[in-house]
Amino acid sequence: MLRDSLKPITTSVQKELQGLLARENLSFLREDILCYSYDATNKIVPPEAVAFPETPEEISAILKLANLRGFPVVARGAGTGFTGGSLPVGGGLILSTERMKKIIEIDTDNLTAEVEPGVITGDLQAAVEKHGLFYPPDPTSFKFSTIGGNIAECAGGPRAVKYGVTRDYVLGLEVVLPTGEIIKTGGKTLKGVVGYDLTRLIVGSEGTLGVVTKAQLKLIAQPETRKMMLVKFAKLEDAARTVTGIIRRCIVPSTLELIDNASLRCVEEFTHMGLGGVEAVLLIEVDGRSESVEKDVLDIEGICKENASTEFRAATDKFEVRDLWKVRRSISPALKRLKSLKLNEDVVVPRSKLVELITGVEQISKERGVIIASFGHAGDGNIHVNIMVDKDDEEDCAKGLQAVEDVFKLTVSLGGTISGEHGVGTTKMPYINMELGAATIEAMKRIKEALDPRGILNPGKIFPAG
Amino acid sequence: MLRDSLKPITTSVQKELQGLLARENLSFLREDILCYSYDATNKIVPPEAVAFPETPEEISAILKLANLRGFPVVARGAGTGFTGGSLPVGGGLILSTERMKKIIEIDTDNLTAEVEPGVITGDLQAAVEKHGLFYPPDPTSFKFSTIGGNIAECAGGPRAVKYGVTRDYVLGLEVVLPTGEIIKTGGKTLKGVVGYDLTRLIVGSEGTLGVVTKAQLKLIAQPETRKMMLVKFAKLEDAARTVTGIIRRCIVPSTLELIDNASLRCVEEFTHMGLGGVEAVLLIEVDGRSESVEKDVLDIEGICKENASTEFRAATDKFEVRDLWKVRRSISPALKRLKSLKLNEDVVVPRSKLVELITGVEQISKERGVIIASFGHAGDGNIHVNIMVDKDDEEDCAKGLQAVEDVFKLTVSLGGTISGEHGVGTTKMPYINMELGAATIEAMKRIKEALDPRGILNPGKIFPAG
Repeated sequence: MLRDSLKPITTSVQKELQGLLARENLSFLREDILCYSYDATNKIVPPEAVAFPETPEEISAILKLANLRGFPVVARGAGTGFTGGSLPVGGGLILSTERMKKIIEIDTDNLTAEVEPGVITGDLQAAVEKHGLFYPPDPTSFKFSTIGGNIAECAGGPRAVKYGVTRDYVLGLEVVLPTGEIIKTGGKTLKGVVGYDLTRLIVGSEGTLGVVTKAQLKLIAQPETRKMMLVKFAKLEDAARTVTGIIRRCIVPSTLELIDNASLRCVEEFTHMGLGGVEAVLLIEVDGRSESVEKDVLDIEGICKENASTEFRAATDKFEVRDLWKVRRSISPALKRLKSLKLNEDVVVPRSKLVELITGVEQISKERGVIIASFGHAGDGNIHVNIMVDKDDEEDCAKGLQAVEDVFKLTVSLGGTISGEHGVGTTKMPYINMELGAATIEAMKRIKEALDPRGILNPGKIFPAG
Repeated sequence: MLRDSLKPITTSVQKELQGLLARENLSFLREDILCYSYDATNKIVPPEAVAFPETPEEISAILKLANLRGFPVVARGAGTGFTGGSLPVGGGLILSTERMKKIIEIDTDNLTAEVEPGVITGDLQAAVEKHGLFYPPDPTSFKFSTIGGNIAECAGGPRAVKYGVTRDYVLGLEVVLPTGEIIKTGGKTLKGVVGYDLTRLIVGSEGTLGVVTKAQLKLIAQPETRKMMLVKFAKLEDAARTVTGIIRRCIVPSTLELIDNASLRCVEEFTHMGLGGVEAVLLIEVDGRSESVEKDVLDIEGICKENASTEFRAATDKFEVRDLWKVRRSISPALKRLKSLKLNEDVVVPRSKLVELITGVEQISKERGVIIASFGHAGDGNIHVNIMVDKDDEEDCAKGLQAVEDVFKLTVSLGGTISGEHGVGTTKMPYINMELGAATIEAMKRIKEALDPRGILNPGKIFPAG
């Protein structure tokens, strides 16, 4: 929703903002405006100003002023999102959390960490690892993306199949509500049912219900050992059937990624691992106690063979593990060499529908005449369908958008969801009524309205106008 | 919140209700009124009528009428709650889900189950077990309590330390909103971030934000094997230290229960296992692959010895396992023989604060002159503190209530929460502002108001008036 009543940041509002923040924490400079006007959607949407607050109190003051003067405020982590969540589509102020990046505490007795929102996910992972601990959520952007952004989008990653998503690791939050009140939700305890679950309402709300200023996160033990496998298949369906076979046998790998031929061909240029002609690959990792890992590897090898795998390879040392991960990690950059624009859609289907999804997507690719490369978290039914188009070719882009809509229709018809981890933002906004009924959307809007009556926080996202 | 504007069910409203439901699905009989006027708090609060709807559409029609005429509606599962959540404190209609008890689907490919709200938790567990599957949430009332009630309260149980609580197993819901709209949230997929997380907002909202009419639940694999241990300690602190020792060593038992001397003395009458003189017992279960279970048992035995355990016993057959569980399961009934009223408070503290909580509770028991028996889910810091009073002795009851307040103050001062799994209902309502700030409560009330503007659904719960 983007209201007509929202207003630009006038010269007098600029002055009021200057009164709230130290000189170096606020900018109206063109170069800063430009730096904070993009995300991973490749769209450029400039804000009118950029703030770099350091405390929840500063954020509170900004939001109170925004309510008074009616200008939009958009919180931003690292801008790695795929759906436009951090783009200031209604103008206004970007509120960057990059100067709030303290790891406040790593509590090795209670297995928790308290962090500020600007902490980079990978930095937190490295810090807890030093204590033998583990923060599992691992969006592919983990080297850049922030915990605050991960919370806003409920980020997932390859390990979600076993370890769950960001939501499953957030115990409590400090949040500045759109109207400026600083509240605490949840806490340091594993359980807690006093009042409504505001913690999980904020997680995944795409920065529209509050600005997270602190998070209490759950940590777990580093698994004793890990084992990585790469399995080749002559048919994509065989690979998909292997995924459902593993799940049906109730084995839970820590990673269960599928990569299709279109992706493999691109990756081959980087890796030279002889993957170019392979129809499909599964990348599988299991972790846990050494004894059970060995047993899992044997069981998985058996299931792969039952499903006509053509090659099964288990990494024998850390260098080989690195090489196998390189296959997965190089897909995204590799695809970008194919076409200038990657429409990355993170659809999810019930795992038994994987074969139908993947064959359906192949059909769409043929019908619409666009290249589609599919890969991703097959273990939880979450496939990244990448529709590749030339961004300067209008016809190609139009075909791509038609293919996106086809893929969403297919997904919903299979009982799936159009977003597993990227969120709705602006790019999926036109499609949410494919998945959500009018009354569901209305209930969500009523909650938004209740917490942000003037509609100043990240407007123009999730809900189509009207 | 209980509004003055709520109205009784008049004769003409009775007739309107009769128009909505089959004759056998609605009762104004005194015997029915009585049967639906209690829960586990021992309080008697009679409704004005009882409905037994069979479809979401019937519930929708009832709620629309309730909005029109202003009478309260309170959904009810099995009435096993400890905090008054299902008591019709504002009068009105009890909406029993007991005729909506179909297990609609157990999907062995996707590891999900779809159920109606009246399904008994234990029945679902038995049904999925036949397929080698596992629905972990196990509130002690699991033989009677319903999935709908478990969802309303976000029920936990002994296994929560490893497997999490009800929230972690709810993938999607069909909900009738207070205003009568039937909505769907989430779905059959493991991931999904389209719009706000209404699923988790409904879970634990104590029947105040909607009536659940279907739930899509996540199942997991039955663990290959389980091993049960009972460990005795000469000091309560040693047992508590063992708990934190196990957690710090990053072992995650499937059950890690602590039982104090006051509880053991009562239990001894039932079990005759020589526990009467023991200061504290830990009941520990580990599960998983056989090889890793054996390793866990050895590690745990070592940690127990480091912390001065006086006896370590691992069950060798299923009969012994049954006996050890009997120790835990007989505590609640056994305590009731001690005094007629058990004020069961399910406080939670960060696990490292267990010793402080337990010694603090002992101190409160001495100071207030009331018997307090503590036991429960030590592994996640969730101790059931049972303040035992004679319900016909006013002075004893007053002392008990003072002790409750002391325990809550202590808990909050240790960074804990006053409810881990029972909810607020009416019994903890006077205390929520010990834990939640005014702005947090205000945000929750705004959400309640947004979804239930007339305040007809389960009024008088969670939020103190004013």
